[in-house]
Amino acid sequence: MNVENFGASERLVNAAYVRQGAQGRCAHELRLRVLLEQGKCPEDGWDESTIELFLHELAIMDSNNFLGNCGVGEREGRVASGMVARRHYRLIHGIGRSGDISAVQPKAAGSSLLNKLTNSVVLDIIKLAGVRTVTNCFVVPMATGMSLTLCFLTLRHKRPKAKYIIWPRIDQKSCFKSMITAGFEPVVIENVLEGDELRTDVKAVEAKIQDLGAENVLCVHSTTSCFAPRVPDRLEELSVICSNYDIPHIVNNAYGIQSSKCMHLIQQGARVGRIDAFIQSLDKNFMVPVGGAIIAGFSDSFIQDISKMYPGRASASPSLDVLITLLSLGESGYRQLLKERKEMFSYLSGQLRKLAEVYNERLLNTPHNPISLAMSLENLDKHSDMAVTQLGSMLFTRQVSGARVVPLGSLQTVNNYTFKGFMSHTNNYPCAYLNAASAIGMKKQDVDLFLKRLDKCMKTFRKEKSNGKDVPEMDNCTKHTSVGETED
Amino acid sequence: MNVENFGASERLVNAAYVRQGAQGRCAHELRLRVLLEQGKCPEDGWDESTIELFLHELAIMDSNNFLGNCGVGEREGRVASGMVARRHYRLIHGIGRSGDISAVQPKAAGSSLLNKLTNSVVLDIIKLAGVRTVTNCFVVPMATGMSLTLCFLTLRHKRPKAKYIIWPRIDQKSCFKSMITAGFEPVVIENVLEGDELRTDVKAVEAKIQDLGAENVLCVHSTTSCFAPRVPDRLEELSVICSNYDIPHIVNNAYGIQSSKCMHLIQQGARVGRIDAFIQSLDKNFMVPVGGAIIAGFSDSFIQDISKMYPGRASASPSLDVLITLLSLGESGYRQLLKERKEMFSYLSGQLRKLAEVYNERLLNTPHNPISLAMSLENLDKHSDMAVTQLGSMLFTRQVSGARVVPLGSLQTVNNYTFKGFMSHTNNYPCAYLNAASAIGMKKQDVDLFLKRLDKCMKTFRKEKSNGKDVPEMDNCTKHTSVGETED
Amino acid sequence: MNVENFGASERLVNAAYVRQGAQGRCAHELRLRVLLEQGKCPEDGWDESTIELFLHELAIMDSNNFLGNCGVGEREGRVASGMVARRHYRLIHGIGRSGDISAVQPKAAGSSLLNKLTNSVVLDIIKLAGVRTVTNCFVVPMATGMSLTLCFLTLRHKRPKAKYIIWPRIDQKSCFKSMITAGFEPVVIENVLEGDELRTDVKAVEAKIQDLGAENVLCVHSTTSCFAPRVPDRLEELSVICSNYDIPHIVNNAYGIQSSKCMHLIQQGARVGRIDAFIQSLDKNFMVPVGGAIIAGFSDSFIQDISKMYPGRASASPSLDVLITLLSLGESGYRQLLKERKEMFSYLSGQLRKLAEVYNERLLNTPHNPISLAMSLENLDKHSDMAVTQLGSMLFTRQVSGARVVPLGSLQTVNNYTFKGFMSHTNNYPCAYLNAASAIGMKKQDVDLFLKRLDKCMKTFRKEKSNGKDVPEMDNCTKHTSVGETED
Amino acid sequence: MNVENFGASERLVNAAYVRQGAQGRCAHELRLRVLLEQGKCPEDGWDESTIELFLHELAIMDSNNFLGNCGVGEREGRVASGMVARRHYRLIHGIGRSGDISAVQPKAAGSSLLNKLTNSVVLDIIKLAGVRTVTNCFVVPMATGMSLTLCFLTLRHKRPKAKYIIWPRIDQKSCFKSMITAGFEPVVIENVLEGDELRTDVKAVEAKIQDLGAENVLCVHSTTSCFAPRVPDRLEELSVICSNYDIPHIVNNAYGIQSSKCMHLIQQGARVGRIDAFIQSLDKNFMVPVGGAIIAGFSDSFIQDISKMYPGRASASPSLDVLITLLSLGESGYRQLLKERKEMFSYLSGQLRKLAEVYNERLLNTPHNPISLAMSLENLDKHSDMAVTQLGSMLFTRQVSGARVVPLGSLQTVNNYTFKGFMSHTNNYPCAYLNAASAIGMKKQDVDLFLKRLDKCMKTFRKEKSNGKDVPEMDNCTKHTSVGETED
Repeated sequence: MNVENFGASERLVNAAYVRQGAQGRCAHELRLRVLLEQGKCPEDGWDESTIELFLHELAIMDSNNFLGNCGVGEREGRVASGMVARRHYRLIHGIGRSGDISAVQPKAAGSSLLNKLTNSVVLDIIKLAGVRTVTNCFVVPMATGMSLTLCFLTLRHKRPKAKYIIWPRIDQKSCFKSMITAGFEPVVIENVLEGDELRTDVKAVEAKIQDLGAENVLCVHSTTSCFAPRVPDRLEELSVICSNYDIPHIVNNAYGIQSSKCMHLIQQGARVGRIDAFIQSLDKNFMVPVGGAIIAGFSDSFIQDISKMYPGRASASPSLDVLITLLSLGESGYRQLLKERKEMFSYLSGQLRKLAEVYNERLLNTPHNPISLAMSLENLDKHSDMAVTQLGSMLFTRQVSGARVVPLGSLQTVNNYTFKGFMSHTNNYPCAYLNAASAIGMKKQDVDLFLKRLDKCMKTFRKEKSNGKDVPEMDNCTKHTSVGETED
Repeated sequence: MNVENFGASERLVNAAYVRQGAQGRCAHELRLRVLLEQGKCPEDGWDESTIELFLHELAIMDSNNFLGNCGVGEREGRVASGMVARRHYRLIHGIGRSGDISAVQPKAAGSSLLNKLTNSVVLDIIKLAGVRTVTNCFVVPMATGMSLTLCFLTLRHKRPKAKYIIWPRIDQKSCFKSMITAGFEPVVIENVLEGDELRTDVKAVEAKIQDLGAENVLCVHSTTSCFAPRVPDRLEELSVICSNYDIPHIVNNAYGIQSSKCMHLIQQGARVGRIDAFIQSLDKNFMVPVGGAIIAGFSDSFIQDISKMYPGRASASPSLDVLITLLSLGESGYRQLLKERKEMFSYLSGQLRKLAEVYNERLLNTPHNPISLAMSLENLDKHSDMAVTQLGSMLFTRQVSGARVVPLGSLQTVNNYTFKGFMSHTNNYPCAYLNAASAIGMKKQDVDLFLKRLDKCMKTFRKEKSNGKDVPEMDNCTKHTSVGETED
Repeated sequence: MNVENFGASERLVNAAYVRQGAQGRCAHELRLRVLLEQGKCPEDGWDESTIELFLHELAIMDSNNFLGNCGVGEREGRVASGMVARRHYRLIHGIGRSGDISAVQPKAAGSSLLNKLTNSVVLDIIKLAGVRTVTNCFVVPMATGMSLTLCFLTLRHKRPKAKYIIWPRIDQKSCFKSMITAGFEPVVIENVLEGDELRTDVKAVEAKIQDLGAENVLCVHSTTSCFAPRVPDRLEELSVICSNYDIPHIVNNAYGIQSSKCMHLIQQGARVGRIDAFIQSLDKNFMVPVGGAIIAGFSDSFIQDISKMYPGRASASPSLDVLITLLSLGESGYRQLLKERKEMFSYLSGQLRKLAEVYNERLLNTPHNPISLAMSLENLDKHSDMAVTQLGSMLFTRQVSGARVVPLGSLQTVNNYTFKGFMSHTNNYPCAYLNAASAIGMKKQDVDLFLKRLDKCMKTFRKEKSNGKDVPEMDNCTKHTSVGETED
Repeated sequence: MNVENFGASERLVNAAYVRQGAQGRCAHELRLRVLLEQGKCPEDGWDESTIELFLHELAIMDSNNFLGNCGVGEREGRVASGMVARRHYRLIHGIGRSGDISAVQPKAAGSSLLNKLTNSVVLDIIKLAGVRTVTNCFVVPMATGMSLTLCFLTLRHKRPKAKYIIWPRIDQKSCFKSMITAGFEPVVIENVLEGDELRTDVKAVEAKIQDLGAENVLCVHSTTSCFAPRVPDRLEELSVICSNYDIPHIVNNAYGIQSSKCMHLIQQGARVGRIDAFIQSLDKNFMVPVGGAIIAGFSDSFIQDISKMYPGRASASPSLDVLITLLSLGESGYRQLLKERKEMFSYLSGQLRKLAEVYNERLLNTPHNPISLAMSLENLDKHSDMAVTQLGSMLFTRQVSGARVVPLGSLQTVNNYTFKGFMSHTNNYPCAYLNAASAIGMKKQDVDLFLKRLDKCMKTFRKEKSNGKDVPEMDNCTKHTSVGETED
């Protein structure tokens, strides 16, 4: 309420109390002020009440919420379902204009503010997370893979002759597809085995560039966060090569914001060499629903070029999610999550090492991977042909999600390109293994449950072959079937 | 509750009443059953309670909502903010897999069902709206423009030699950009003036194809819904040409689902010739927030090819919005909206014609455009240089949104291509004009308010020059400033 | 946002657009202003967005929502569950103070405003509904019966000698109990049969007063809304008697606000005689959840006396519900509901009369009852002993709610008082019958479904005895059991 | 979804995933089952998703949510506003029937279950909190004071001759009013000073009973939780007296559930003597909004008698709040809150003692009061006449809520009864003082802020007279006015 309405309230309620109430309102306004003026994530998280008030204030700045508006266009922010209107806090106009996903919409001052503030707050967090010299970024309502595609499409206009993308192998389909979809030919650089780790073959990259001719190479497409035993690419060396050969460098930093190591690699790469853009997933780094990514970089104009390549308006939903999340966490809350993730990584690796030893397996030694771990399944693999995949399905049935078993020798063809040893990032990794990761938001309880269930599954194999009874039956919700409730 | 829980309830509450309650539950289950079995939009809309129950049921099928789940992956559907979780009904995993946006996710049976059902229900509605022979479609969380880009990128793999896209001119930036972003060269075909209407120059299209060589043409990119005095492209003729020259044909049907005429054109085009895909906006046709599109077509495999081009998972938010909306409207509700739109179009055109006559202007005669209308501003334009643009800003200030004034002779350069007479779809349209549209969800009140305000603005010009006082001042919410409240 | 925050926004978004947004906000503020200044229900209903903003504004005026508050008392508006906080819009402090349910709370300016405004808006609606000279009222979070008790307890202090309450019989338990609970002895005045109607025996009332001695009578407790064939009491005559004998008069107007006839009776009674307070249910008149009542009257001080009798703070929930409802309906919306109710009454009585004739029954002639109707079940009763009650249970099973069958001769003892012919308001009504009412919010569809199902049930009896198969079985949600879906 | 719908889902999504989803549902069903079967608060709290699903399941068992229902009564659970329907989870029918607030409603099996379960879960928690032999209780949507009134009204029927209620003085208006409203004459027993504490004068109670004659005494009305320096009444002795003289005993245990000491007193009283009912506030013990109370006792039939005294249905809102809260906390969560409260009490008393010493005041020695503390304001009082009340208003302005200053010698007349030394529970307490309490939900931050602000205020007085500048001005939300934000 404005000053006049507080005045009118004094007709009904004691002026001193109304005044106290008005002062209560001020504190919320001041929070907004600081946000609007500084464009940074607040140090301490906001309560839901302030966030809702803020979103409400944004919404009533959009023309679809004007009480006296009349719309005679083809896109007026009309909403047929109240449920839909409410879940979007009545922010209906999306973000961007037909020319530029970062542009401001005349019809929607509130949604435009939302867009600007989100990008600004996210930029602040990227700095906090370790890439201090980042200069610009924007949230795009597309998956990481499609966002990579958009970067490649932008580069096409700058390097019309280029046909190839140099890509140190990472066995994740959408990375590969992002290049295919953009219409380029991925040039796969196999990784080299160093101890248990799979690392970037920097020399092969340089050789290939010379081989193809720098002007025919659209960019180097490197990766930070990945499943062990692969480790983040040698970004410093790659960045220097890119700089030397004047080749753009796009980094897939999918879930790397949560790791200071990944962020440090990007910061270093940009310092000593060339990184044009780095792309990260919203959901994997900020615990929001799937569907958004951040495109960030060190050159204001290049990031703007990318944002101008997106034809048409876009969904504000991922921006809204990440803004709500960061305002509610605050910088301190996000730092705390990063800290807990690191601790949980230590805990997970310690416990997994112990369990591995019990079963004559071992935790692979992958010190350069800050997020993902791998435990060998060498003995299990010897046990029977199917044991490794069977273990995977046993874990799935027992509501362990995200654990990934990697058998030897799988072949996979993606868009006519055949990968040997698919999932393991190399043609012939020495052993089968199991992946587990300590990602942001993981709880000690997750680790404990995982280890307990993994232990049970591994025991089954020990007692000679699993006799087929390992999969719990679904029998109409009797007490015995509730995986989580009974066991723990 | 299941049968056993109803049984347990009888301990507390009279069995006859519990039984009545259980029967009440059945009716909701039956609605779900019909939806799951038929995959069609229900004839009558569902109440919010059933929809919420349904979404709740979907959500608890996703692993992030399993009570006993433990997650050890990097993407586990964790959510930091309760506000965010709630607004997505706890459906966090998005849609699709890294390989295919239409694929099913093992971790998220509920989200997968949501995705499948949405596409199925939307397909049903496309048929209802007039394209009866459509065979496949999917919702993609990207704007219409970016969705067109995805189609062009898919075609690239089928026609590696092709560089050009034949495009009958439509002055909407994102249409043009969709081709640029995909890396192709748009070949602009100027429209021909027939009466007041701007129509497809079919001969020029064919001539250009012959000129460039069919194998060098990626596709013809035509448009249905557009601002008058342009009218929908001659789809039948274009489709026949595409068929004859074996060239793909992509139709931008942005807000055409709401018009039986646009849908009929597509149906006819597909019957007599070739249409590979037609793309439409979710927000403009279904009154949901900006951010999604539907890619539909007549060949199952081609639509699947496109869905497989999207690298990575994607936001479920637009799918969720359109599903909620269609379930709450039902087929009957959607048909009713279509009917009302048509009626409102008649009403708007009648009223606008009258008003035009008062000011010695006229409603342009554009019978082939079923949605958008144009009123000449010939006399106004003569009045003063700036009058036309001034009218636009006066309408904006008076909370008329979506009305578009088109002055003569504006130049606009988009991605190095210069358009003469930009916004008017032709280099030299005979007069300046004003657009208004009757789009889905428009109310009689919108029309009446628009005409009242337009009338006031036009009057201002009559009284000799507007003396600069036409813009209401913002003076801290006194009663006089509330545009909508006081005036009407 | 306040002016300074709009200013700060211009750093991020074009000033003209921000200004437009600020103006959008003004319209909402103006609505609040009018409400605060006039304390009346707005003519046109508010949209949800304005209502939510308003409640949000109220909430942040309460100390539990102050960002810098520290609480060291025993009642600080703390909330353990976010779900609970949200569903109350964070208005936690309830209404009133220990001394007075209408008093203002220092800790909770917002909740206090809510309380004052609700009472003010409700007063306005009572006037609109026909009692134009009402002077004061308040919402109390108790049922109608308990509210009557509170009135009687207040009167005790004014008439310490009085032991009796004169009560024209109405067969509804809570009316009777309201007097018992207050510690008084109800003196039941039997109704007289006039045609089909049961009407107040005014002479018996006066005789009883003379008999007991006016000073021993606490009050006359009369009733307006009731089930046919009873009709509203003769309020004018009763009010005159009360005036003549200087006896308070409390009117149970449970669901009478919805009927202009009931309201007219109260207005007339107060004009020509004496009415001290009239009590009405919130849920039955305003379509809100069960649990609140309005105590209203013509003497400011007496109504205040009652409000001061409630010891302690009280739930704001019923006040919140009715305020939201009235703001969303507006006066025009409420008037429309009243109008539709009347029309539906005509429709229901017409259709029920026709159906009655088919089965040789008749619609009882009860022109003074504006809400409830009764159809004789004379022939059905002859059919078999149990037929009448059987019909009741058949209707229940078929999801007809609110239809009430009244067999002859039931005895019921309530707090040691035995009622003959209970439910029929008289010892020996001439025939069994069925009640149906046209209450606010009833739809034509309700009437049609009711008549269809009643018809089916009546038919069953015709085909000789119901052979016991009339109750549908619950067989695990197969399609046949869904009463509403399949039948209609 | 039921088994058949899961089956139908397999048409769209891989059967194994659907099966996994169905199993996920089972875990939720099992939780409900345990609740329904045992009627106890679950050990571990439920997540919001399960609670919402549960409420949704209850709602669809009520006739107003039947898809095929037709209502022809006057109370059909119709809701005009969607906002209202949603905030009550569509549970509209309230609780109880006209005859009994604990009774089951035929139209509303879900609401009836809610009512039964709430009472059952609350009973469980009362046992957990220390009154292990309690046998029955019910939640009533009225304040503690009005609930006491209901108890007294029930006793009237059992003791028709009785006029007096024996009441050890407690200076809280609604306690006193609860007796007045019920129509009885409170007989005030002054407390005795023992050290700093004010304690029950047991002998005076007994003497007064003999004086008035036991049969003329309705009951003894004692109190546990209260502001220091008063302490809980000597319940054991009072209970023995009540037993000896065959007089009912009603205990006002307003916020005593949170204190094991208060609960122990009740348990002991019931063991050695007579306690008929004990009443407690919902909001003060369970952190829910104001407006409900629990009436509990050791005789099933007496508690039922009380529940049958409430005439009419009642609001389900307080029941819903407390059920949601207890399900979300679980027994463990509630125990944790009790534990933290105790710790915070120690912390507050330690810190307050230190601060008192700084200002030559002292923490009054009130070891029998487990919740409230008092710090003397002896020196401040000498400082100036108004200093004590001025301190109160300074704390209020600084957003300290719940701190209560008690000056000497205030007179207060409540319903014609004059209390000397009102607020201090005695005619002449030796000194003025300040109260602060450690109530459930208090945080360390509250204590620290309180002490900091109190310290500042006390300092002001030291620097000679407060020169009138102590009240912060409200100047349109500049940064200096935000109490909480800037200071801390």
